[in-house]
Amino acid sequence: MSQRIVVVGGDAAGMSAAHQALRAAKAAGREVELTVLEATRHTSYSACGIPYWIAGEVPSGDDLVARTPEEHRAAGIDLRLGARATALDVDARVVRYDAAAEDGGSGDVPFDDLVLATGATAIVPPWARTPDGELVDGVHPVKTLDDGAMWLDLLTRREPGPRRAVVVGGGYIGVEMAEALLLRGLEVTLVTRSLVMGGLDAALGERIRAAMVEAGVDVRERTQVERVETDDRRVVAAHTDAGDRLAADVVVLAIGVEPATSLGAAAGLPVGGAGGYLPDPGGRRAPGVWGAGDCCELEHRMTGRRAVVSLGTHANKLGRIVGDNLLGADHRFGGPLSTAITRFAAGGVHLEISRTGLSTAEAQEAGYDVASLVTEGTTISGYLPEAEPMATKVLADRSTRRLLGVQIVGGVGAAKRVDAAAAALWGAMSVDDVAGMDLSYAPPFATTWDALQIAARRLAERI
Amino acid sequence: MSQRIVVVGGDAAGMSAAHQALRAAKAAGREVELTVLEATRHTSYSACGIPYWIAGEVPSGDDLVARTPEEHRAAGIDLRLGARATALDVDARVVRYDAAAEDGGSGDVPFDDLVLATGATAIVPPWARTPDGELVDGVHPVKTLDDGAMWLDLLTRREPGPRRAVVVGGGYIGVEMAEALLLRGLEVTLVTRSLVMGGLDAALGERIRAAMVEAGVDVRERTQVERVETDDRRVVAAHTDAGDRLAADVVVLAIGVEPATSLGAAAGLPVGGAGGYLPDPGGRRAPGVWGAGDCCELEHRMTGRRAVVSLGTHANKLGRIVGDNLLGADHRFGGPLSTAITRFAAGGVHLEISRTGLSTAEAQEAGYDVASLVTEGTTISGYLPEAEPMATKVLADRSTRRLLGVQIVGGVGAAKRVDAAAAALWGAMSVDDVAGMDLSYAPPFATTWDALQIAARRLAERI
Repeated sequence: MSQRIVVVGGDAAGMSAAHQALRAAKAAGREVELTVLEATRHTSYSACGIPYWIAGEVPSGDDLVARTPEEHRAAGIDLRLGARATALDVDARVVRYDAAAEDGGSGDVPFDDLVLATGATAIVPPWARTPDGELVDGVHPVKTLDDGAMWLDLLTRREPGPRRAVVVGGGYIGVEMAEALLLRGLEVTLVTRSLVMGGLDAALGERIRAAMVEAGVDVRERTQVERVETDDRRVVAAHTDAGDRLAADVVVLAIGVEPATSLGAAAGLPVGGAGGYLPDPGGRRAPGVWGAGDCCELEHRMTGRRAVVSLGTHANKLGRIVGDNLLGADHRFGGPLSTAITRFAAGGVHLEISRTGLSTAEAQEAGYDVASLVTEGTTISGYLPEAEPMATKVLADRSTRRLLGVQIVGGVGAAKRVDAAAAALWGAMSVDDVAGMDLSYAPPFATTWDALQIAARRLAERI
Repeated sequence: MSQRIVVVGGDAAGMSAAHQALRAAKAAGREVELTVLEATRHTSYSACGIPYWIAGEVPSGDDLVARTPEEHRAAGIDLRLGARATALDVDARVVRYDAAAEDGGSGDVPFDDLVLATGATAIVPPWARTPDGELVDGVHPVKTLDDGAMWLDLLTRREPGPRRAVVVGGGYIGVEMAEALLLRGLEVTLVTRSLVMGGLDAALGERIRAAMVEAGVDVRERTQVERVETDDRRVVAAHTDAGDRLAADVVVLAIGVEPATSLGAAAGLPVGGAGGYLPDPGGRRAPGVWGAGDCCELEHRMTGRRAVVSLGTHANKLGRIVGDNLLGADHRFGGPLSTAITRFAAGGVHLEISRTGLSTAEAQEAGYDVASLVTEGTTISGYLPEAEPMATKVLADRSTRRLLGVQIVGGVGAAKRVDAAAAALWGAMSVDDVAGMDLSYAPPFATTWDALQIAARRLAERI
């Protein structure tokens, strides 16, 4: 009898699991019936690309779609769009969903295996909503393709067009949206509860803040928006806890995301302290119930602690592992290192930003005896005109000399260098290994001692 | 009594050793007398930068000098310029050198420790010399600052200026000089005995050849220059073993280098099959005799075999280790992985090239059961206009699944990605590790599955 697999959520994790299950079934000569319930009308799109679409660098939202519904169906997936899963009965092995009549209507789907891949939803603070629960006009998050379409509407199809923006949140999306809105010609104020790029250590975050200010962004750190002011239902200003009124034609909600786990939670599946499902490294949560993607907490590779790390890379990887394991494999996800990268490139500034492993606070929290330093270097040989400054922070454990983390802030070509450090962390290598390893050098690509290796060497000499 | 250290050769390896010995002595509260004999008038310069100086991207040869003679002397080094070491007596512990009177004249220097850091010299084939042993006018290698100055003279200060160039050699320097000469407006023919970038597997080398042809370079593979034709002592053509006469106003000798070991060899120090000194991983060759840099053969980290890997990175690293070990430390060089990188950017083409670890031929030679594949990807998310093609070859051992090597040929941003693979090789990781590790992703920096990881994953699935 055919194995009935139902996937809830048709984006990175869910569709990776679905296609990999199909491939694994084909390879094993087994039959599977694959049903995917997707609440929106979109599948397999790059949420990370949305700020670049909003900025105008990507011509169309369609460009962000890696695989269309038609392509999924052609691969043999019974894809139901507009189908919101509303109830799950783990014992009876059935999931119920609501859909409009034009989407085939509502129904129950029985399963042998269920994959929860419902992703995460943007956090919307109470002040962003009208009394009847709708978003205030002009106030919007940046999470889904529909959000992206709304932003293009707000920015390009209104008369008069918006002139002033407030971005709420100083993390990756906040920085990327500040860039996008500057490129769209708006005046931008960024308000963040903590510090700009607070996931990095303060010395590096400060460089990013300074670059944003240089580019013309009004940055307000340690500040919160308390309410928005409207006129004729449209936002006209944000009011902060510092008592300031920030005039705003649009307000970006970039505060973060939270795992979408109501379906499983209501069915009795436990969620962790960060609000996500708790699959094992093979993606199993309960017999025949699996989880992958942003709705899950993952075991951090360096601390063993559970964390929500909402990134397409992990969703794709764990999704694929689940796909194999659904057909009997026993693959395991290696866990996140908290590697991340972005840039801020607008207003005459081009700054690249990356990190991998633990920040100082995270490493101390995890019990490491942290030694660290920041080294100033250049991206490539300083005698070439394209050389740009690059600050590299390296963290290691004093007693074991193990590399704990690397953070980079610098010009063109700086940030992706973090991958060598990520590989070293993956292999639990020491700061001496990083200093000694054979990284590539030629004048247009690096300094003779690579900036990462200078930093590692200096730290190695100190501990 | 003060420890008398004499270093022969004042470039990367020698000066790294010298300064590190000074630092280590200072830290230990010990006295050292440091003498450096340098045959030329230049110290500590970037030989790798010379093609970019010749191309006009670096304004002056002085820009390539990392530390001037004055700076070395200010640090406490007794630096003797124009001082060519001519005889070494290991038992009597004395080295003799020749210098002109204005350089203080010739002399003997006694030592407690001697560091041989004489580097490598460009290979000059017999046909490049006149009957009296001089280089034919217009025919020149690209190794030293003086070579660079000669090239600038040939290219910019002659009337009429040269129009046609023949580059002999298809390795890194040959490709970089083809770029430089195209940028200088010359017609370039590249002649190579084997294939363009023969250190890479043929499938990737072929892409480089095709790009060079697209840029207007006349590439002649599996061809050798047999003689040059002169007119009034200046070169006017090169004749190949294919019977072709290639008109040439200048001819670049980019055939390779050979370790400069005549001093030690005459003193009875053994040299290896590749012609280099044979220091241990701590840089020791004999009691009180050390070696570092391009004059040495190094134990390859992946094969354990000795090879000459002429790169400033290794010279700096082993030089520094020797400096510490001279003062009693016991540091060890981790060995080269054969990591290398370059680009060909001229004539409307911009191609980046890198490798780490073993090529197919090298891996087979070393006894590995090689599995490999080439994957086509893009440098960054395909929906961004800056995305460029990137071909990645991954090699692994079939039985252990160990990563053996990676080769990359692609557009802007492709080549430096090889460092993540180099780090993985350093840690003897598997192809599964590379596929699973947490590399950085954001649309302007990578695809969701990084190109390197797609290649590794596909190979992992096959073996």
